[in-house]
Amino acid sequence: MPDAGSDDSFPTLGDLEAAAIGKLPDRLRAYLQGGAAEERTLRANREAFHRWTLRPRALSGVETVDLSTTVLGVPVRAPVFVAPTAYQAQFHPDGEPGVARAAQASGWLAAYSTLSSFSLEAIAEAAGTGPRWFQLYLQPDLSVTRRLVERAEQAGYSAIVLTADTPVLGVRDRQMRSGFAIDGSVPIGNGPDVLPPPRAPMANRDRYHLRPEAKSSWEILDRLRDVTRLPLVVKGILTAEDARLAVRHGAQAVLVSNHGGRQLDGGPSTLSVLPEVVEAVGPGVEVYLDGGVRRGGDILTALALGARAVGVGRPILWALTVGGAAGVRRYMDLLGSELATDLALVGRTSIGAVDRSVLGASPA
Amino acid sequence: MPDAGSDDSFPTLGDLEAAAIGKLPDRLRAYLQGGAAEERTLRANREAFHRWTLRPRALSGVETVDLSTTVLGVPVRAPVFVAPTAYQAQFHPDGEPGVARAAQASGWLAAYSTLSSFSLEAIAEAAGTGPRWFQLYLQPDLSVTRRLVERAEQAGYSAIVLTADTPVLGVRDRQMRSGFAIDGSVPIGNGPDVLPPPRAPMANRDRYHLRPEAKSSWEILDRLRDVTRLPLVVKGILTAEDARLAVRHGAQAVLVSNHGGRQLDGGPSTLSVLPEVVEAVGPGVEVYLDGGVRRGGDILTALALGARAVGVGRPILWALTVGGAAGVRRYMDLLGSELATDLALVGRTSIGAVDRSVLGASPA
Amino acid sequence: MPDAGSDDSFPTLGDLEAAAIGKLPDRLRAYLQGGAAEERTLRANREAFHRWTLRPRALSGVETVDLSTTVLGVPVRAPVFVAPTAYQAQFHPDGEPGVARAAQASGWLAAYSTLSSFSLEAIAEAAGTGPRWFQLYLQPDLSVTRRLVERAEQAGYSAIVLTADTPVLGVRDRQMRSGFAIDGSVPIGNGPDVLPPPRAPMANRDRYHLRPEAKSSWEILDRLRDVTRLPLVVKGILTAEDARLAVRHGAQAVLVSNHGGRQLDGGPSTLSVLPEVVEAVGPGVEVYLDGGVRRGGDILTALALGARAVGVGRPILWALTVGGAAGVRRYMDLLGSELATDLALVGRTSIGAVDRSVLGASPA
Amino acid sequence: MPDAGSDDSFPTLGDLEAAAIGKLPDRLRAYLQGGAAEERTLRANREAFHRWTLRPRALSGVETVDLSTTVLGVPVRAPVFVAPTAYQAQFHPDGEPGVARAAQASGWLAAYSTLSSFSLEAIAEAAGTGPRWFQLYLQPDLSVTRRLVERAEQAGYSAIVLTADTPVLGVRDRQMRSGFAIDGSVPIGNGPDVLPPPRAPMANRDRYHLRPEAKSSWEILDRLRDVTRLPLVVKGILTAEDARLAVRHGAQAVLVSNHGGRQLDGGPSTLSVLPEVVEAVGPGVEVYLDGGVRRGGDILTALALGARAVGVGRPILWALTVGGAAGVRRYMDLLGSELATDLALVGRTSIGAVDRSVLGASPA
Repeated sequence: MPDAGSDDSFPTLGDLEAAAIGKLPDRLRAYLQGGAAEERTLRANREAFHRWTLRPRALSGVETVDLSTTVLGVPVRAPVFVAPTAYQAQFHPDGEPGVARAAQASGWLAAYSTLSSFSLEAIAEAAGTGPRWFQLYLQPDLSVTRRLVERAEQAGYSAIVLTADTPVLGVRDRQMRSGFAIDGSVPIGNGPDVLPPPRAPMANRDRYHLRPEAKSSWEILDRLRDVTRLPLVVKGILTAEDARLAVRHGAQAVLVSNHGGRQLDGGPSTLSVLPEVVEAVGPGVEVYLDGGVRRGGDILTALALGARAVGVGRPILWALTVGGAAGVRRYMDLLGSELATDLALVGRTSIGAVDRSVLGASPA
Repeated sequence: MPDAGSDDSFPTLGDLEAAAIGKLPDRLRAYLQGGAAEERTLRANREAFHRWTLRPRALSGVETVDLSTTVLGVPVRAPVFVAPTAYQAQFHPDGEPGVARAAQASGWLAAYSTLSSFSLEAIAEAAGTGPRWFQLYLQPDLSVTRRLVERAEQAGYSAIVLTADTPVLGVRDRQMRSGFAIDGSVPIGNGPDVLPPPRAPMANRDRYHLRPEAKSSWEILDRLRDVTRLPLVVKGILTAEDARLAVRHGAQAVLVSNHGGRQLDGGPSTLSVLPEVVEAVGPGVEVYLDGGVRRGGDILTALALGARAVGVGRPILWALTVGGAAGVRRYMDLLGSELATDLALVGRTSIGAVDRSVLGASPA
Repeated sequence: MPDAGSDDSFPTLGDLEAAAIGKLPDRLRAYLQGGAAEERTLRANREAFHRWTLRPRALSGVETVDLSTTVLGVPVRAPVFVAPTAYQAQFHPDGEPGVARAAQASGWLAAYSTLSSFSLEAIAEAAGTGPRWFQLYLQPDLSVTRRLVERAEQAGYSAIVLTADTPVLGVRDRQMRSGFAIDGSVPIGNGPDVLPPPRAPMANRDRYHLRPEAKSSWEILDRLRDVTRLPLVVKGILTAEDARLAVRHGAQAVLVSNHGGRQLDGGPSTLSVLPEVVEAVGPGVEVYLDGGVRRGGDILTALALGARAVGVGRPILWALTVGGAAGVRRYMDLLGSELATDLALVGRTSIGAVDRSVLGASPA
Repeated sequence: MPDAGSDDSFPTLGDLEAAAIGKLPDRLRAYLQGGAAEERTLRANREAFHRWTLRPRALSGVETVDLSTTVLGVPVRAPVFVAPTAYQAQFHPDGEPGVARAAQASGWLAAYSTLSSFSLEAIAEAAGTGPRWFQLYLQPDLSVTRRLVERAEQAGYSAIVLTADTPVLGVRDRQMRSGFAIDGSVPIGNGPDVLPPPRAPMANRDRYHLRPEAKSSWEILDRLRDVTRLPLVVKGILTAEDARLAVRHGAQAVLVSNHGGRQLDGGPSTLSVLPEVVEAVGPGVEVYLDGGVRRGGDILTALALGARAVGVGRPILWALTVGGAAGVRRYMDLLGSELATDLALVGRTSIGAVDRSVLGASPA
């Protein structure tokens, strides 16, 4: 049980963001907080949760609450996972290994970025027996991609999360304004041949060229299938059409994500398209969601609309900034306790009992 | 008739809140003003009233207005009652007895909390012949619960209001931030064996435990029925399902309440679910509402949607803070006069004449 | 044609309010600007206009625009009139006679309050041949009411505007906070026996009494009909029911008004109920509207929804405050010019050509 | 590819407006930024884009993006053009020729105002082979109008854009407040006999007169057809009725525009009426739109709803203010790059592939 008095840096979940951004230099703050262009999608992610209501139940007789579930068959102690985010050592020297230790202690699944500050092997060592996923950015050179997947499999990652929404980075005003650039100047733990997605299209006479080698169509799933026996999760699905394509190309799960509002500004909030994706993939394929998840009630809402689990991205970096691995641990404690409280208040004793009936009418 | 010049501490109902919070130390202010988590439900309670319009009538010939009604058969001079709130002596030394004197003088019904600063007997003595209800928090030890009910019956309380929405306290950011805790450190007038609800679930490996003895399912109504012949009002009903369960288990009335937005953030405003609860219980069972009631027009709106009476919680504590029993009296005068004015302006002479036709079209 | 450079006190209609309130002492500002309670209805009046769109027409060939129309058969140079407001000398020594001179010069109809600072005869003298209406507050003593009507008829007022929404004044927080009171202390030009409406209901044991003599039901129209042959306009109609009652009791016209948001807070905006009133009275009875009319486009909107003319209240007092009769004249010039411009932009050359087709789709 | 570090005056599109208005004196700022009256329509133009969502597509395999299209058969490198705006030399000495050089270098179409600071011949010389349109304000003297059209044709302008929404200027509060006036005091490059539209109607007894010679009905298109063989584009269409009239009178294209919110306040946003105009003209007539276009996603949205191309007005003047011709060039680079990025993110490789399916559901 979290104790309000034990850590005055963020006594509640509602204090975390402010505590973190007060500690960050401008460039990192712009990188962490910003989204694409006018940040409409960034805001929409959060606002979407506020359009739903939860239905509290009275005298439901709940005595204990069990938050555990499974994700792709792997048991976890909460239906929440660490969404993949890059360059974590910039926020705290504990970096990804710190997050990994906190996740293991909390029994949470965590996903780590291709662009991690530490090597995936170092992260795996810190994670120990903790469940972990490897997020994959396709590399210009397919052999580099292959090697990353092979290393992840060898290091005990249990799934590959293929990011599918980044043929080029979105136009990120705040980052550009601050001078922050994802351009290779930030060290990447997985080796010097690993590259971030291209920063902008290159204009050449009448055409704009994406990084030519970066071609990524659905056939890439078939190629990855040749390299690994790990389940493939496609991240960045926002339409029923793409959800069906993912399933057709052998994805075991899809992650509804708009890259935290950093890619296409004007794209939909993730929560608003979750139902259409859930319906499109059908019952045999797990669906996750990230983007704007902040409180226990948000998790309940997404689960009630069909998500198997939800990812939290920025909050992990806030907690890491504030207190390193211990900060992440405290954040996980607070969120778990709040989710348990909220589950009790809607009269449910387990995650499996959360269904559409915990929500009020659909928003107009 | 209230006189604007007589008390410059709150010349109008609209000045009361600011006058009160200016006098409170931070911790009490956080306790009184705050809600759960992001306070969405706290705000929603108020906003829900603003979505309805009242229909003024012209030349209706109203000469006198009668605000009296009955609540569970007991005559009261207004369809408004004091909602139960805890620890009133923290706001003013007059505490619950001061509220009781004001309520008696005004002819209002008042409900007092299990967690009152004074003993229920002392409150009853101050209330004299004034109508009063006892709000019950179920105690870990059933014998303590029984004893509270027996004492209330002996002290002339005319109903038991069973709070049904608090197997654990909601996550209250503002309180935690301020250091305020409902944890036993605040003296409770009803005796040292009386406890507040558990503050948070206890994490123990894979489970979160509520206070194990706190189990409270609908069967508790049957047990209470064995202890007392007083009518049972179930407080904290927000769904048609629970409204029907309450009736099936013998409740004489239900109180639509979300604990002032302090339990499940994201839960619905009380006004928005009032119609479904009224319909679910049918005509034989009275329905009350609290949460966000501030002005005369709010009372009309709730009555028009089927409430028999409405409770006011925070406003009573504001008035108590500002002026003790006299402040509460003045508040009741102002609210009564405004309700009488508004009733005249919709062309009605009595509470019984308020029906759905005083309202405009349902909000979208 | 108004010239922006000629009067820097309010170069545009949008500058008028700020220019005026900067010149008013707190008490008058509270009286002029405020509404009832939380001022929801006050705000709603204005916001209602903003929900509609006008449909500009291209190359319509408009060369001249004629704003003239008739109101109850009387020719006026614009479909806008001065709505009745009380105590105008408090805002500028020119008072009602100053307004009357400006209205005559502009060819506008003006309505004057029972509670005018100057006598209705003095105002009539200033108005000369200008069209004028007398607004009537029913008096406790019917003989006083009769005498007012007889004087108005003799002084050349062409209609009686019976205010029907004020059995008691609304609860006006801003006024009470500022210490302003409509209580007889402000001189009334029509004589010492003329009284404002009662300020609040009087509580007496279990009942609230309005001023007992103030009874005003629809039969009063029949009594007024016995006293005068002037047309009767009922002011304060907000429902189809009351519109039909007014017609049944012989009103020649109705004025959709909520007393500038000063009576029942939570009542509807006037524009939102205009269509239902227009439909209820049928084609033979003129319908006017006041409340929130500020710009040329607002006038077009109300006319398109069936109003014959619209009243402006606060803007006249703002203009009077800023510049006396000359200020009012300038205001009328600016508003007329803007209305002419807007009429040309929707491709109409006259008021009679304004119909529902100048508006876009109904707001949701 | 724009480089964030190369010009710190506006590192992103989102910084442009603030950078520009900081450099402008009050009068020019009022002229550039303001709209009519309360500026409802000005704001609505922008907000309309925010009601739509774009549908990002995953793993679409986009390698290159081609922004080129044709407008009235003329090839352009982007589906965006410079909307006509007056008096550009007031913002930067480079004036219209500077814009022309930037547009030619970028391969953009540009339209120049009758009220340009430089002569249309000087602009044409600067534009070289760059595609250009001439915006026409009808002149009181038809022979002046004819001469303007003939000069434009001779100088290589490829279309006449007839502004059809300005029989009189809208009421522009901000301009009047600041003392800015479109009144002939600002030099016009096309000669001393060229006049701006009339500033306000002239009141004369009971009528308001527009500049009498300014009569402009649909027959004017037939007259222009006699003067020139250039295609006619009618600017200022906001209704299906006028769209059909334009086609019937021989317009080759229509430009949905509300003059940047400067004419009829309360008029609809351009985006909201685009679909009805597109449907009204049918497939053979091109439809353009201006008003509120700021970001790449806005262009995609308008194209998806049927626009062939969109105009940008204020942004060009902001860029000109900040950096002259070089500033305009940089703006065009940034917008082109953003549009290319957004096109890739919705999985399209060319402008022709943009259809309604890139958008989510219609806003309510």
